[in-house]
Amino acid sequence: MDSRARQPNLRADGGPLLAALRGQGSLPAPIWLMRQAGRYLPEYRALRKEAGSFLDLCLNPALAAEATLQPIRRFHLDAAIIFSDILLIPRALGQAVTVDDATGPRLQPFGEAFPTMTPPAEMDGDSLDPVYRALKLVKAKLPDGVGLIGFAGAPWTLACYMIEGGGSKDYAKARAFAYGNPDAFERLIGRLTTAVADHSIAQVAAGANVVQIFDSWAGVLPAPALRRWSVEPIRAIARRVKAAAGGVPVIVFPRGAGVLYRDYLDTADALSLDTAIPVDWAAAELQGKVAVQGNLDPAALVAGGETMRAEARRILGALGRGRFVFNLGHGVLPETPPEHVAELVELVRAWRP
Amino acid sequence: MDSRARQPNLRADGGPLLAALRGQGSLPAPIWLMRQAGRYLPEYRALRKEAGSFLDLCLNPALAAEATLQPIRRFHLDAAIIFSDILLIPRALGQAVTVDDATGPRLQPFGEAFPTMTPPAEMDGDSLDPVYRALKLVKAKLPDGVGLIGFAGAPWTLACYMIEGGGSKDYAKARAFAYGNPDAFERLIGRLTTAVADHSIAQVAAGANVVQIFDSWAGVLPAPALRRWSVEPIRAIARRVKAAAGGVPVIVFPRGAGVLYRDYLDTADALSLDTAIPVDWAAAELQGKVAVQGNLDPAALVAGGETMRAEARRILGALGRGRFVFNLGHGVLPETPPEHVAELVELVRAWRP
Repeated sequence: MDSRARQPNLRADGGPLLAALRGQGSLPAPIWLMRQAGRYLPEYRALRKEAGSFLDLCLNPALAAEATLQPIRRFHLDAAIIFSDILLIPRALGQAVTVDDATGPRLQPFGEAFPTMTPPAEMDGDSLDPVYRALKLVKAKLPDGVGLIGFAGAPWTLACYMIEGGGSKDYAKARAFAYGNPDAFERLIGRLTTAVADHSIAQVAAGANVVQIFDSWAGVLPAPALRRWSVEPIRAIARRVKAAAGGVPVIVFPRGAGVLYRDYLDTADALSLDTAIPVDWAAAELQGKVAVQGNLDPAALVAGGETMRAEARRILGALGRGRFVFNLGHGVLPETPPEHVAELVELVRAWRP
Repeated sequence: MDSRARQPNLRADGGPLLAALRGQGSLPAPIWLMRQAGRYLPEYRALRKEAGSFLDLCLNPALAAEATLQPIRRFHLDAAIIFSDILLIPRALGQAVTVDDATGPRLQPFGEAFPTMTPPAEMDGDSLDPVYRALKLVKAKLPDGVGLIGFAGAPWTLACYMIEGGGSKDYAKARAFAYGNPDAFERLIGRLTTAVADHSIAQVAAGANVVQIFDSWAGVLPAPALRRWSVEPIRAIARRVKAAAGGVPVIVFPRGAGVLYRDYLDTADALSLDTAIPVDWAAAELQGKVAVQGNLDPAALVAGGETMRAEARRILGALGRGRFVFNLGHGVLPETPPEHVAELVELVRAWRP
C-alpha cells in the first residue's frame, strides 16, 4: 500500500522531505545526497571553469543557484541543498579564507585575525548576501514538492577550522586551545552560536524550508566536551531558528559522535547518520524519537553494482518503514559515476518492505 | 583497601598490566600511553638525530630498544611498547615504504607493488628481525613487573595504507577498492591476517608478554564491512596468537568503531577505547566482559592543569574500580610537555574511589 495516499496535505505542504522531517514515515523515502552538487558532475566542472575558484562560485548567486539546481534536473531528487560553504561564516567574522582544490581550505592565523582570540559579535552581513540571493533564485526555479535546504557548520566545527587554520586529521590544536583557554573558547563558541543561528534564520527568510547543521568534527571530542561545545550550542541554535522561522525543521549531523548520537536527540527534527552508525542501533535508539537520515557509504556509490544495491536495501530494510530520509553517510566523492546516482534514486523510489 | 594485597601471585607474574588484562581489577590502575616513546621527549629527539629517518630508528635494534626504554626510565610506567611501526608488515611483503616527518608515510603504488592486487603469501622474515632483536634487548633491561607490549596494525588498517599509498582523511579509495573488487580484497585481507598473526607470535617469542592490534581506521567502515574486514580477521589473529603463545593477552584498538565496539568483545582480553567512547557506556557495555583501556584526550595532556586532572579523575571514577588500564584515547602528541605526563602518572597512582 502506498502510504502517500493517506497524507495528501503533508505531501502538498513541502513535499516528501518536509513530510518525513515532520514525523510522517511514508514510501518511497525521500532522497537527497550530501555534496550532490559537485565535481562528479560534468556540468558542475564546466560551471567551475566559468566561475574561477570554489569560493568565487559560492559567492556568485547566479552560478551558485545553477550548481544547486544541476543535480535536481539530472536526478529529480527530493531536495536541493544550497551550493555554499561553511567557511563563509568565519569569513563574515573577518578571518580571511581561501579554498584550494588540492590542499583544501586555508584560514588566516587565528591570533592574527583575532588578537583577543575572539571574533567580533557581529558578522559582516553583506558578505553573506550572495548566499541569500542564490537561495531566492533557486526557490523561484525549484519544482513543487522539492525541499530547499539551507545549512551551516556547527560552532565546534567552525572553531576547529578557525583555530587550526585549515583542515587537520584530528583537530588536536583546537582541542588543546579549548582545554587550555576555556574562557576564550567559550566566548568564541558563543559568538559562533549567534552567527550560525543568524545565518540559518536568514537562509530560511530567503527561501530555505529546512536547515542542516554540520558538526563534521564532533567525533574528536570526549563526552563532556562534546556536550558543552557541540550539543548545547546546537540545541541553542535549533531553538532560535525554530522560534524565528515558524518551526522550520532542523537536521543535525554530528559526524563521528558514535554512542553520543543519543545526546542530540532533543536538538533536532532529524539526525543525519554517518557511515559508522549501525542502522539497527539507529532504528532502536534514535528513530522512535526523531527522523533519521543516511547512511550509505559514499565509496559504495563509487563502486556501484550489487554492492551498492545490497547496501542501499540493507539500510532501507532497517529504517525505511519509519521516519527516514535516504542519504549518504558523508558527501558524494568526486570519482562517483553519475549513473550510479541515477540507479540509486531509482532503487530507493521502487523499494517496498 | 589496597586490593594488591589479595593478588600477590598475579602481581608477581608480569606486574600490574598483566594482572589487569587477566581479569583482576586492582588499584592503582596500571598506566602506559600510546606513543609514549616519541618526539615530545628531548631524549627521543636526540636519538632520532643519531638514527636518521624514522624507519632507520625502527630498524636499528639498539636504538629502537633505547627509544622503547626512555619513557620507562623517566616515568616508571607499567608497560613498555616496542618502538616500531605498523608499516613494517607491508614492507616485509614487498611494498616499498618511506616515512617523512612532515608528510607522513608513503607506500609504493599498490598495483605496481602487487600487479595481481595480492601480496605474496610469505613475508620477508629477515626484514622484521630488527624488531625481534630490539624486543630481546628491551626484555633484558626492563624492570621486573613492567609489561612488554608487541604490536601490529590490523589487516583493514594495513590494507588502507597499502591501497591509498599513504595516509588519507577517509580511506575512500581503499573502501571503493574493497567494494569493487571483493575477491581480490578478501585475498589481501587473508594474507595480512596471516602476516599479522605471524609477526605477533614472533614478537611474543622475542619477549613481548602482551600484543596490541591497532585498527586505526575501523571507524570509516559501515557495520557489515567492519564485521567482515575488521572484526573477523582480528578474531582469527587473536585466536592464533593465543593458541601459539600460551594465552598471551591481546588488546584490540578498533578506533572510531563507536557503537560497534561491542562487536569486538569476544576478540580480545581488553579493548582500547578511543576518545569518543563515553566511559559510562564502556563501563556498562564492555567492562563486564573484557578489560578496558583508555581514554584521556591527548589534547588534555597537552593542556595539563585542572582540565587534565578533572578528565583523568572522571575516567578513573567510571572505570577505575573494574578491569582497567589507564591510557590515552590516541597517541601522545609531539607538543606534550613531559612534566604533564609525570603529573598524570602520579595522579593515577594516587587515585582511590
